[in-house]
Amino acid sequence: MRDHSTHVSGSRHEVVDALLSEWHFAREAETVPVAQACGRVSAQQVVSTNQLPNWPTSKMDAVAVHFDDFAGGMPNTSAWVRGADWQFCNTGVAMPKGFDTAIRIEAAEVSADEESIKLNYVPQCRGESVTQVGAVLQPGDVLVEVGQVITPVTCSVLSMGGHTQVSVVKKPVVMFIPTGNELIDVTDAVPVGKNIDSNSALICAKLEQWGARPVRHPLIPDDPDQILAALRAGTAQADIVVINAGSSKGSDDFTCEILEREGRVLFHEVNQGPGRHCSFSVLDGKPVIGISGPPVGAEFTSDLFIKPFVDVYLGANTAYPPTVRARMLDSASGHSRPMTMVRRVAVRRTRDDAFVARAVALDDRPALRFADNANGLVFLGPNSRGWEPGDMVEVELRWPYTLPPYVD
Amino acid sequence: MRDHSTHVSGSRHEVVDALLSEWHFAREAETVPVAQACGRVSAQQVVSTNQLPNWPTSKMDAVAVHFDDFAGGMPNTSAWVRGADWQFCNTGVAMPKGFDTAIRIEAAEVSADEESIKLNYVPQCRGESVTQVGAVLQPGDVLVEVGQVITPVTCSVLSMGGHTQVSVVKKPVVMFIPTGNELIDVTDAVPVGKNIDSNSALICAKLEQWGARPVRHPLIPDDPDQILAALRAGTAQADIVVINAGSSKGSDDFTCEILEREGRVLFHEVNQGPGRHCSFSVLDGKPVIGISGPPVGAEFTSDLFIKPFVDVYLGANTAYPPTVRARMLDSASGHSRPMTMVRRVAVRRTRDDAFVARAVALDDRPALRFADNANGLVFLGPNSRGWEPGDMVEVELRWPYTLPPYVD
Repeated sequence: MRDHSTHVSGSRHEVVDALLSEWHFAREAETVPVAQACGRVSAQQVVSTNQLPNWPTSKMDAVAVHFDDFAGGMPNTSAWVRGADWQFCNTGVAMPKGFDTAIRIEAAEVSADEESIKLNYVPQCRGESVTQVGAVLQPGDVLVEVGQVITPVTCSVLSMGGHTQVSVVKKPVVMFIPTGNELIDVTDAVPVGKNIDSNSALICAKLEQWGARPVRHPLIPDDPDQILAALRAGTAQADIVVINAGSSKGSDDFTCEILEREGRVLFHEVNQGPGRHCSFSVLDGKPVIGISGPPVGAEFTSDLFIKPFVDVYLGANTAYPPTVRARMLDSASGHSRPMTMVRRVAVRRTRDDAFVARAVALDDRPALRFADNANGLVFLGPNSRGWEPGDMVEVELRWPYTLPPYVD
Repeated sequence: MRDHSTHVSGSRHEVVDALLSEWHFAREAETVPVAQACGRVSAQQVVSTNQLPNWPTSKMDAVAVHFDDFAGGMPNTSAWVRGADWQFCNTGVAMPKGFDTAIRIEAAEVSADEESIKLNYVPQCRGESVTQVGAVLQPGDVLVEVGQVITPVTCSVLSMGGHTQVSVVKKPVVMFIPTGNELIDVTDAVPVGKNIDSNSALICAKLEQWGARPVRHPLIPDDPDQILAALRAGTAQADIVVINAGSSKGSDDFTCEILEREGRVLFHEVNQGPGRHCSFSVLDGKPVIGISGPPVGAEFTSDLFIKPFVDVYLGANTAYPPTVRARMLDSASGHSRPMTMVRRVAVRRTRDDAFVARAVALDDRPALRFADNANGLVFLGPNSRGWEPGDMVEVELRWPYTLPPYVD
């Protein structure tokens, strides 16, 4: 059995930062239609081709007039002819040729036959209520910067600027390798002694949400040759490799041996639980992250240990998750282990915008289902005493960091 | 020119609630692979087919033993044979046949040849550290409820339960009809006097984000026959119809006339600006929402007046947007209009988790680009005095209601 006394352990930030600093990659780009770009990260600065408006346009539903006609104050409009002395002009529409000023329609009384007009307002300057050429957009105006997440607003300004396509950061390909003699693919007829591989569905769905392109390697047993072949397939095809299980203290932890021999293991484990047996290695220049098998731990360690690599590849949103200080509503036991223990909590807001929280118990069936009730994590340090009602505790919100709802 | 004195106006909630109450629809479902279900809304309650584990499994990396061997305390293990008296068992793996109890591996000393063992712990009960059959999941356990948004966790418990497909609410089809004589499709060669239809890109991208399936009708001019034809195409093909512009006070506001004649107009406008000229009608039993043309108003009125219909169709997340009380950092002018005026603001958190906010100016080029800086809206009532630094103001967060970042 493998000797674990030489395993290198680190804190949750230490392990990620170390592997990030060893990862040298070239961020690739691809061109997509603007209609498909929402949520993608811009790979280039894009400027406007267009000038808008390219003709003076009315700022409101109005009548277009000649400012010079008001040189002596309100003119006599009884003989004014539509088309010559005045004309309708709607919001955002080009001013009729020759007219330079607009008066809002509410200040005009137009006859039923729309031929005669009486005005109740004298414009104060030439061009009043008219949007001048280029006031909205000019060639060269920046529409989106490098590294900016594209939103519906971005899609609209790209359109204004004349663009139907945009260059975005390619989705990082993340190969997920499920391993384990005891696992089988999803089925409703489970052979005795076997378990379902549910982490593939969990982690591949998270990867999609984070903007990566997951590739699920077929399930492989705890066989060194197959593990190595899968890792090599990963480093060949993917930007980031995630391998599930195989770093535990059992007799089948070949993954660490293989990575030590073929690559470099920076950390064999994290000094934190659940999910302690997560490893951080480099193979063929690619990051290889081992996520421990049990689903309840994998559910949040994937956020802590895989998402940062996706974020860094994309080049946006690389900040640590936000934290809030919450008043605890319940008691939680401490622990006497020389490591950090992670507790799931539900955070809420009070009516005076303070935050409160309580532990989320995963004690119903199936336990993992109730993980979604936890929008926060509390990291209890070594030998922590837990918490009592009224304690103020730092809570790290879970992605996507939605404002916690009211407590009632 | 159309007489607007008969136009019916309502508040932003009144207009939406009225149209929602007139909308009688049948929520449709479709079956999708679990791998594509994330973000969709479950259309059925789904229960487990599987029982897991279906054999006792070890809770940790351990050695499997027979509890009866410890009847007299710690047995003499010097002659113990692997396979007969003890065996390795890893986390989550089926206990070897006949063994009923597990001792964590750290409490065992195994010889290098893995044949001899010394134990440093006596188990306290039969089945200690063993997950019994059905403890994780049993047939009939609920995996997801009707109306629940499917998450990566849901995908994993569906997998555990033996499901590779799931029934989800069909995406509501929303037809977006851009109209306007002055508009053209996106191009980098804009004819003089024309403007780009940028609202199609804006609103169709929002619709996708909200979980709808947008269908963009080709751009049509301000022609009654074409407007009617487009509206009929909308009610025939879509669940919800959105028509852009055409309800303004100009000479080309045929849309309201058509909807009054062919259907029923509940509200011709909202008593709120910008974006006052949004209309709410029923045609052929379908909701028809008119969104006013100018992009700066359309950018947020689409959230206020279209999103609720998508949310109600999907049957999840139908609550009003959350609000926070923020201390204003700047001054903002009031207004003297007998209607609500909406101001964009940027909300931040202070280090003691209080909220602060300031107005977002859309005064650079292109103005709309800076709308993304506003994560909140302030609704200033009729004749509001605006705000001064230090005022506590209610701010409505903008979707997706992310926790505001720190102010520094």
